[in-house]
Amino acid sequence: MSKSFDLLKPYLDKSAALDMALSALSFDFDTTAPKKAASYTHQAMAILSKESYDALMNNQVKELLDKCLNEDLTTKEKAIVLELQKIYDKLIKIPSELYNENRKLEREAQLAWEEAKEKSDYSIFQPYLEKIIENQKAFIKYREDDQLKGYDVLLNDYEPGFTVEVLDQFFELLKKEIVPLIEKVKNKNHKIDTSFLNRDFDIEKQREFSSWLANYVGFDLSRGIIKESVHPYTTQLHKNDVRFTTHYYKNQLDSAIYSTIHESGHAKYEQGIADNLTLTLVGSGTSMGMHESQSRFYENCVGRNKNFLGPVFNKLKETFPHQLSDVTLLDFYKAVNKFEPGLIRIEADELTYSLHIMVRYEIEKRIFNGEVDTVHLPTLWNQMYQEYLGVTPKNDAEGILQDVHWSGGSFGYFPSYALGSAIAAQIYDHLQSLMPIQEMLTTGDFDKIDEYLQTNIYQFGKTKTTQQLLKDMMNQSFDSSYYIKYLKDKYHAIYEEEE
Amino acid sequence: MSKSFDLLKPYLDKSAALDMALSALSFDFDTTAPKKAASYTHQAMAILSKESYDALMNNQVKELLDKCLNEDLTTKEKAIVLELQKIYDKLIKIPSELYNENRKLEREAQLAWEEAKEKSDYSIFQPYLEKIIENQKAFIKYREDDQLKGYDVLLNDYEPGFTVEVLDQFFELLKKEIVPLIEKVKNKNHKIDTSFLNRDFDIEKQREFSSWLANYVGFDLSRGIIKESVHPYTTQLHKNDVRFTTHYYKNQLDSAIYSTIHESGHAKYEQGIADNLTLTLVGSGTSMGMHESQSRFYENCVGRNKNFLGPVFNKLKETFPHQLSDVTLLDFYKAVNKFEPGLIRIEADELTYSLHIMVRYEIEKRIFNGEVDTVHLPTLWNQMYQEYLGVTPKNDAEGILQDVHWSGGSFGYFPSYALGSAIAAQIYDHLQSLMPIQEMLTTGDFDKIDEYLQTNIYQFGKTKTTQQLLKDMMNQSFDSSYYIKYLKDKYHAIYEEEE
Repeated sequence: MSKSFDLLKPYLDKSAALDMALSALSFDFDTTAPKKAASYTHQAMAILSKESYDALMNNQVKELLDKCLNEDLTTKEKAIVLELQKIYDKLIKIPSELYNENRKLEREAQLAWEEAKEKSDYSIFQPYLEKIIENQKAFIKYREDDQLKGYDVLLNDYEPGFTVEVLDQFFELLKKEIVPLIEKVKNKNHKIDTSFLNRDFDIEKQREFSSWLANYVGFDLSRGIIKESVHPYTTQLHKNDVRFTTHYYKNQLDSAIYSTIHESGHAKYEQGIADNLTLTLVGSGTSMGMHESQSRFYENCVGRNKNFLGPVFNKLKETFPHQLSDVTLLDFYKAVNKFEPGLIRIEADELTYSLHIMVRYEIEKRIFNGEVDTVHLPTLWNQMYQEYLGVTPKNDAEGILQDVHWSGGSFGYFPSYALGSAIAAQIYDHLQSLMPIQEMLTTGDFDKIDEYLQTNIYQFGKTKTTQQLLKDMMNQSFDSSYYIKYLKDKYHAIYEEEE
Repeated sequence: MSKSFDLLKPYLDKSAALDMALSALSFDFDTTAPKKAASYTHQAMAILSKESYDALMNNQVKELLDKCLNEDLTTKEKAIVLELQKIYDKLIKIPSELYNENRKLEREAQLAWEEAKEKSDYSIFQPYLEKIIENQKAFIKYREDDQLKGYDVLLNDYEPGFTVEVLDQFFELLKKEIVPLIEKVKNKNHKIDTSFLNRDFDIEKQREFSSWLANYVGFDLSRGIIKESVHPYTTQLHKNDVRFTTHYYKNQLDSAIYSTIHESGHAKYEQGIADNLTLTLVGSGTSMGMHESQSRFYENCVGRNKNFLGPVFNKLKETFPHQLSDVTLLDFYKAVNKFEPGLIRIEADELTYSLHIMVRYEIEKRIFNGEVDTVHLPTLWNQMYQEYLGVTPKNDAEGILQDVHWSGGSFGYFPSYALGSAIAAQIYDHLQSLMPIQEMLTTGDFDKIDEYLQTNIYQFGKTKTTQQLLKDMMNQSFDSSYYIKYLKDKYHAIYEEEE
């Protein structure tokens, strides 16, 4: 007898195939398509998006979904059904009129944000932001239940299990432990020279090096490709076709190196999804924070580690013998670990990055607690930057208008960036207790690390939440103290010898 | 009041969007995707293909189509409806059981053909070919009507208006006029040196030259891209995203040059489709023969013309100064126009190419007239090659098993290749009567030629048939005598001075 889930499968498969095509078209558009392709390609993509939506959002699927919830399901089936249920819940609870009106608003708001940022004039964006927040508050009202209230509803979309209660604790610790370090950094960082990173580095040679590096850290080039785009990112058609971009600057050697390692971390996660999960609703990384933990693990814990850099720097000197002839491994290690409080999140170093996120989190929290008016956001932003990072934006463009996220209604998204780094540090600590990590990094032998991540994280896709993965791995849930310890240790290792 | 066509439009748009995605995925697969992507990508593509098929092949569409046939339609709408009608006719007349059984057979036959070709053993393929022909004959029976009978039914799928009657006349003229030239060629071609084409030519430099050349002949690189694949071909997402591949051989300079010009001809046609036709059923070249005429026009009439080669050869010498230092324009011109009867169609020169097609046409005709048994095809093939080209295959692989087409049931397809060259010659003659072509080729000024082709061919897509386009252009239908004259003139220009 055919179970409801079997009847559901063709709908799921159709939606997955359409989503695969959309991923491919989107990546192609960013990296390959001729520049005048946009209008017709987007016209066709809009039709495919609607088809993908309609494939799942219809009465037949809704009925089957309801039946599935009362049937015996395998772990995989159950995870898929719950994922589908989540999509339904989010959409069905919000009146479609309001939902569509809001989509239109977000498109307009994005244009307004672009103009505002270009002119560095928050007043252009403010009325749109006001209305977007109003809609988000209405969405929250429709979506609240016994477990989730207020801002937690939004946080849950990106990082289930990481409520205001959990995040407050996390950011309080950051504030207490990391903010004081910033003052010290300011007094010391002039001693570290990074100027050699700005010499002339041939792009084609950088390209070859990136490809070598991605392969070195375990990105499988027989199941993935590397291309270029302005903002590096990772996407997937399925587990055997994972694609990422990087970006080369002739006079900024470290940029492509670290975006390549970062995206390799994301890409390895997607390449590690179990065969039977790929091309399903649960066939990708479990949450934004866990995904970011995998990219940050490789970028920072591994990629900025002195032992890891030994063989990598040798290869780099082979590639650029002339440009790096007077540079030592220690010079390079210090240069790529130089801490410097700045104004721009995406340019932030490892030590200050999470403080940028803290600013955004605290502002979002106050917004949804009704404690601040949008008119006052620039002032609040600037005060917090001064307080936490010791710097003050000169204008709206490098302050309140910095990120695109809010113009698209993405509230609750930012914390995942910081959680990623914190989870990475916790996993890194755990791995050090299990295996001789430093020796492995020294020799470039990542097999055991990969195997551990593959077995304990990658393969599960969305069938386990972030908190479940952490608990199953180390018998404890998320704990930010590892991150604080990691940052402090690192800070001391880099700066203490400069005393 | 909404017309039936307006109700039909969403179905057509959906199918077009899916087909665009499939073209993009397919091109990506050939040129970009990692090598292990195949199985999941093909699994998803199969679902999208079925969706595209189902989008048009359903009762709602059939009903709307029938209504449309009785309504007032614009030229464009009418063309789209007729195209849809054609797809329906082909599929609806054949019982779906037989149709599906045959698709399965074709998949098996292709594998058998691959094995047979590898082992050079026709007996492996023969039973499959036998069955494929039997099915094709059954299809013909189901599809025959008052106008079209027998082999004409198949020919009509690729080249409406070019029946056995028309083609017999065409090939008879070829046989009478061109076959006698072959003997002469054999006695003269030793005088032309082509060895310099086999020197070492850096692939990256060939790539740059190809890009220059495509742009030089009018391929718009802001609306198209060039990549690489084993067998060069052209595809399109829509008129503003036309993609072709070429293939570089280090020791065969002319290969990439002429595949680049050939594919540029195809690509220009697709880039020239009218805005309001792209992403519709009539938004690409009208027929295989007309498409091939545009590629052959650029490849041969233009690309192997001595005047055209003047500036092109200069650029080539700039690109490869060392390798071509002792080569003159005349040497190059003769080398790329050397005629040599051979056994392999896709390696054939301009003079002998259509004779390869004639062999295949005559065999197909005898097959569908019931005049030959599949067991005797290798003998027949070899006899014809000896008779027309003066060469005899040593084995089945370079004889009867040469082409993949029959294993996929593509009978009636081959003649279009020869028609393409013949139509190209007819258009070339016509253009010479309208404008100073030779001066234009000498200076590389293609504007007037492009404008003429754009206005009289490209823009119409499938809204006019090949015969209609020819008539509207020059007030006469297809006439193969231009092709004979073109080939004879060319032959004499190259060889007479060698006397």
